Amino acid sequence: MRKYKFCFIGAGNVATHFSSELKKCGHEIVQVYSRTKEAAKQLADNLQTSFTTSPESITKNADIYIAALKDSAVDQVLTQVEFGDKLLVHCSGSLPMKILSNNTKNYGVFYPLQTFSKNRKIDFKSIPIFVEASSTDNLQVLEELAHHVSKSVTVLDSEKRKSLHIAAVFACNFANHCYAMAAKYLESKELPFEILRPLIQETASKVQEMHPKEAQTGPAIRFDENIINTHINELKEMPDLQELYNSISKRIFEHHQEKQ
Amino acid sequence: MRKYKFCFIGAGNVATHFSSELKKCGHEIVQVYSRTKEAAKQLADNLQTSFTTSPESITKNADIYIAALKDSAVDQVLTQVEFGDKLLVHCSGSLPMKILSNNTKNYGVFYPLQTFSKNRKIDFKSIPIFVEASSTDNLQVLEELAHHVSKSVTVLDSEKRKSLHIAAVFACNFANHCYAMAAKYLESKELPFEILRPLIQETASKVQEMHPKEAQTGPAIRFDENIINTHINELKEMPDLQELYNSISKRIFEHHQEKQ
Repeated sequence: MRKYKFCFIGAGNVATHFSSELKKCGHEIVQVYSRTKEAAKQLADNLQTSFTTSPESITKNADIYIAALKDSAVDQVLTQVEFGDKLLVHCSGSLPMKILSNNTKNYGVFYPLQTFSKNRKIDFKSIPIFVEASSTDNLQVLEELAHHVSKSVTVLDSEKRKSLHIAAVFACNFANHCYAMAAKYLESKELPFEILRPLIQETASKVQEMHPKEAQTGPAIRFDENIINTHINELKEMPDLQELYNSISKRIFEHHQEKQ
Repeated sequence: MRKYKFCFIGAGNVATHFSSELKKCGHEIVQVYSRTKEAAKQLADNLQTSFTTSPESITKNADIYIAALKDSAVDQVLTQVEFGDKLLVHCSGSLPMKILSNNTKNYGVFYPLQTFSKNRKIDFKSIPIFVEASSTDNLQVLEELAHHVSKSVTVLDSEKRKSLHIAAVFACNFANHCYAMAAKYLESKELPFEILRPLIQETASKVQEMHPKEAQTGPAIRFDENIINTHINELKEMPDLQELYNSISKRIFEHHQEKQ
């Protein structure tokens, strides 16, 4: 496919992984912008390119501009940049595509549905990518680009993408918080978090084939009051965990009373 | 190692997987007991052995009795059985070992820390097993047995095992509930649960190497109010999900304000 020149606006987790993957696929990253010099320089060094911390100094010399910023910063940063007719893309799950319509007539969305941490390698090819664009031509560019870096590409409108993002917060961030609370509790009892790892892996692996409702186990689904009350009593010294235990146990039981 | 004759008291998820593994390792399962004929017969057929639904008819002809029952049933079923001096073991995370002391002088615990569903195959060798016993002789039998079926064996007392079980409920059952709520929400928006699978897998894979606090991402940790408020507003038609979203987002943010 055609090789493009990219400018990355943002140097966080998504920008780090996406820009590296594009470079690996033969595209050129001509510049990185970040509000903080440290982040801008680190990513630019990785990519062996230049950086800026000033929105006005963002290059005119890119074909595609990728805004990988936190949602609250997108509008504020982009209004300071002249895009002309260039293609401008954001990577947000929840921002509508239309938010870019004041910046250029060519715009779109490239949403990779994954949890990124800077220092963790990830197989980009397995990340589902959701794209949307302001015209069929722009959509073609983004679809082709998405297929270049991933084997799972779907066209999805802003409304559905927002729903997907909400579901992702439950499945990823909230599930991870459950791991974190397990770790916090174990550490208070001088037991290592490591012993839970095979259980966590299998819990996720089960739902690769089963529906999560069908995969559920444990005391709450059986409403085993002996265990539930023992556990709630044990948690009395950690009231935040106790309250979470109580409320999620009730929810699990109620969810399993609902019609399938 | 020595091959034993086992009697399984209980025919649920744990009994199904544990008994099959013992048989595979060359031990003999001489009988299965379950309250319901259907479950007893199904497991006995799998194991090509006999079954009973009456506690009084439980065989005298086993070396080791494995009580894999829900906690609330353990005491009630076991008091109806004559064990003599035979070794009696339960598989519960939360029941103290001592609960068995009225049934025989030789007793112990064999707790496999995993989520079992009957129709899902599992690599037993990778399951961490936690053992405890009433004497050093009994402990030696259980440790040897555990090493026979798993590569991860730890001696753990009842108090610590209970803590571990509580942590496991958070890391497994509660995480799975987050998947289930994601599925419920997606289905209400006519989006398939499948698209979350790579994200769920990676969320679990990350904490195989990282600590969950370090692995966290998403709007709550950044306290991105734009996204959080958009999501809460979107969830207004599903008040149970809205409340869960609100409460866990606050918890994630607060947890990340705590000292490391």
